[in-house]
Amino acid sequence: VDLNADVGESYGAWTLGDDEAVLDVVTSANVACGFHAGDPLTLLRTVTAAAARGVVVGAQVSYPDLVGFGRRDMDLAPEQVTADVLYQLGALAGIARAAGTAVAYLKPHGALYSRAARDRATAAAVAEAVRRYDPALPVLLLAGSPGLAAVAATGLTAVGECFADRAYTADGRLLSRREPGAVLTDPDEVAARAVRMATGGEVVAVDGSVVRLDARSLCLHGDTPGAAGLARRVRAALEAAGVRLAPFAPSATFRRS
Amino acid sequence: VDLNADVGESYGAWTLGDDEAVLDVVTSANVACGFHAGDPLTLLRTVTAAAARGVVVGAQVSYPDLVGFGRRDMDLAPEQVTADVLYQLGALAGIARAAGTAVAYLKPHGALYSRAARDRATAAAVAEAVRRYDPALPVLLLAGSPGLAAVAATGLTAVGECFADRAYTADGRLLSRREPGAVLTDPDEVAARAVRMATGGEVVAVDGSVVRLDARSLCLHGDTPGAAGLARRVRAALEAAGVRLAPFAPSATFRRS
Amino acid sequence: VDLNADVGESYGAWTLGDDEAVLDVVTSANVACGFHAGDPLTLLRTVTAAAARGVVVGAQVSYPDLVGFGRRDMDLAPEQVTADVLYQLGALAGIARAAGTAVAYLKPHGALYSRAARDRATAAAVAEAVRRYDPALPVLLLAGSPGLAAVAATGLTAVGECFADRAYTADGRLLSRREPGAVLTDPDEVAARAVRMATGGEVVAVDGSVVRLDARSLCLHGDTPGAAGLARRVRAALEAAGVRLAPFAPSATFRRS
Amino acid sequence: VDLNADVGESYGAWTLGDDEAVLDVVTSANVACGFHAGDPLTLLRTVTAAAARGVVVGAQVSYPDLVGFGRRDMDLAPEQVTADVLYQLGALAGIARAAGTAVAYLKPHGALYSRAARDRATAAAVAEAVRRYDPALPVLLLAGSPGLAAVAATGLTAVGECFADRAYTADGRLLSRREPGAVLTDPDEVAARAVRMATGGEVVAVDGSVVRLDARSLCLHGDTPGAAGLARRVRAALEAAGVRLAPFAPSATFRRS
Repeated sequence: VDLNADVGESYGAWTLGDDEAVLDVVTSANVACGFHAGDPLTLLRTVTAAAARGVVVGAQVSYPDLVGFGRRDMDLAPEQVTADVLYQLGALAGIARAAGTAVAYLKPHGALYSRAARDRATAAAVAEAVRRYDPALPVLLLAGSPGLAAVAATGLTAVGECFADRAYTADGRLLSRREPGAVLTDPDEVAARAVRMATGGEVVAVDGSVVRLDARSLCLHGDTPGAAGLARRVRAALEAAGVRLAPFAPSATFRRS
Repeated sequence: VDLNADVGESYGAWTLGDDEAVLDVVTSANVACGFHAGDPLTLLRTVTAAAARGVVVGAQVSYPDLVGFGRRDMDLAPEQVTADVLYQLGALAGIARAAGTAVAYLKPHGALYSRAARDRATAAAVAEAVRRYDPALPVLLLAGSPGLAAVAATGLTAVGECFADRAYTADGRLLSRREPGAVLTDPDEVAARAVRMATGGEVVAVDGSVVRLDARSLCLHGDTPGAAGLARRVRAALEAAGVRLAPFAPSATFRRS
Repeated sequence: VDLNADVGESYGAWTLGDDEAVLDVVTSANVACGFHAGDPLTLLRTVTAAAARGVVVGAQVSYPDLVGFGRRDMDLAPEQVTADVLYQLGALAGIARAAGTAVAYLKPHGALYSRAARDRATAAAVAEAVRRYDPALPVLLLAGSPGLAAVAATGLTAVGECFADRAYTADGRLLSRREPGAVLTDPDEVAARAVRMATGGEVVAVDGSVVRLDARSLCLHGDTPGAAGLARRVRAALEAAGVRLAPFAPSATFRRS
Repeated sequence: VDLNADVGESYGAWTLGDDEAVLDVVTSANVACGFHAGDPLTLLRTVTAAAARGVVVGAQVSYPDLVGFGRRDMDLAPEQVTADVLYQLGALAGIARAAGTAVAYLKPHGALYSRAARDRATAAAVAEAVRRYDPALPVLLLAGSPGLAAVAATGLTAVGECFADRAYTADGRLLSRREPGAVLTDPDEVAARAVRMATGGEVVAVDGSVVRLDARSLCLHGDTPGAAGLARRVRAALEAAGVRLAPFAPSATFRRS
């Protein structure tokens, strides 16, 4: 299984998360692209740090909402979504190229992630950007979601992910962050869920039912206090359970055409 | 000689210039990259329109100053300049790739242009971004300027440009826009200057002296009222004088590596 | 009846609308506050021009979405809406105070207007800002809307407005701009509708039914081509019909406490 | 003497400084106004927390440079500076009014502070905004600077401040942050300098000479690690030396006109 987490989410004078520590744990790094976080210099340093560790770089694209950290739903026209994704994807690709690596996949962030997961039209608008930019680029989205199916339907590589520290509803959706208990913080519980997800492909939902998950990647959070410690704990549990950790996307090194 | 002009400088609900008309005249288009103008959807439409006409696309990178249209000098650290240029260059390259073309050169905008032209350290910070992104990419800057020499000294292709509608000082610098007479508006005068620049490699400065210009491109302005008409007038005068118009950078079509 | 229109919607190098011409026609000016349009210098000039004509100044507050001109719905928490409104209201009040006038009412813009008109919770979040800032300040919103009722329920002065150049549904809502025929452009038709609204308090909906409107203000648009001409046409028609034009809010001059 | 520090410099998801702890120590709070930091909700919470403690609120106005935290010099026209200051001053005043308090003074931030301190024209552009907004509002700026004199020359109340944790040159300027030793971090040394400044009105410059300071306020920094602890240490040392701490501006409660 692949382990992914968000990095590059500092902005100018503001620091968020402990990217160095997170990059030591994950196999894939969702790097912000400037619309919800990530000034250019932060991105250059983050991508350089990822490349130095052989961590695969993905573009984490967002709605243009810096003050809301991309977490507030916005009603964009599909062609605005496509253009915004292209812009961010290219921007991070430029940064990555300068760091001797390349963007190897795309993952929406925050409210764009939620909407793309549940709304096929939004997923299609995101996929359209990827298709026009590079149809070989995988898209990472919530395992089992309508949006992931919509991405796959366009012919792109659609990779499902699951969340060891998020509560699931019985129908396989994430419980909204606005609900109590949406985010799990007990390290043992999170680690145990990660192992069951990676080895059994399933998770226990909030109502006690068992939900099947078809996920090739497991998302860890990097922006909560103690996130890096929790990530290390999950990785150790997975390795102890004999799970082989590897990126889902080929480790891309930029090659001149 | 090459004819270049700024396009893609609308932003959301705000329209600036008549890009379609300008693209009908020039051989190279300096497309904004979002920091001084140019939202992603505008950029996608602009680059598509340029590609449809075979106009070569350049990235017009700026200080991050939307409200000041990139025209106000800012004191950035060199590594901030480099990262900002990489981000913008990549963003436009992503847009261009989706439009079936590619970014073929880079040109700084506004206050970054002015500072890069006069200050070798700023020029070097810009050049560093280009070198790391693609050392084959030419940089367009004021003919005869210290900055252009600094770019050339890094080993990059440094292309000089001149301005038929701007007044020059005796030492070959542009008269500041804050000075009266800095911008020429008489079509006949501008056209005549363009022909002399293209055929004789010289311009008459504000003190009446003749200044030598080593320029492979001639910049037309697209954002003034009647700009497209003036551009057509200049092009017609150049063609009447037997000047062959062609882009200085190879018309780039994106090729998969 | 009062005539209101949007002004101050230029931004830096980008000009939108013909504010001087619009200010010659209206009795109340909805001045942008920087979140969807209106840089500080533009606002200072606009408010100064309004004050010089005795036009009453209102704060037109928006979601923070410059690139989308505040026209894209955003999902903000109520306390974010309240704080955003307070910030914008205060900003324009500061500008107005320097121009020797004051903000005399508040009107939401674009997507915030639409949501506040249909959603009582959003209207209440806007009203909460006004109540905390100055409970004597009227709020201008769509006549007959649930949001207007919600504002009135807080004890604030809620003023209804109607649109002579927008199509109405049979239940008194504006037809979405995404629908064909949503915006009327025939000057005679718009003028005739304005007169019927002002004298009869009614409008003919898209299905031919007659809708009652309880409106003390009539909104004219300033950002469409020919907007100023249409506004003059409407004003002339109203005056010819004997309608007395006057601002609904007292013309406020700033008084030191 | 007055103790002032910067607060309200978080932004959306990003937290900076420990405002609650700092507000427990100072007598005056320089609250960000959104141009370099401080989203509206953060500002509302910060001003509310200041008001609850009886801490006087000042508007800390900046160049519009969020990504650079207002620390990068920008070349604005004087009327842009004036309009930008008015906008920010009003915005914070609106927030303060909702919190039952008022803005009692103005202090420039970062690069605008530096330029206003050394450049009389910039100081005058800032002062012009204050004069037009409320000529009774004091302006806080570097003690002994040309800018402070320029503010005083306009007839406004110009209040000098000094920095216990910053190195001074022999001519009374702050050593640039780019120089080594510009910021002092040893608590004992900072406390001792604060006491000498408050009781003796002098500081030892980097060359060993003694510089006279005419300062009614002492600035503490809130954004460095351990800032709140250092602030408490300084306050304790001042109180132990018998210095009476009080705001220089009257604690303003908003009064309806």
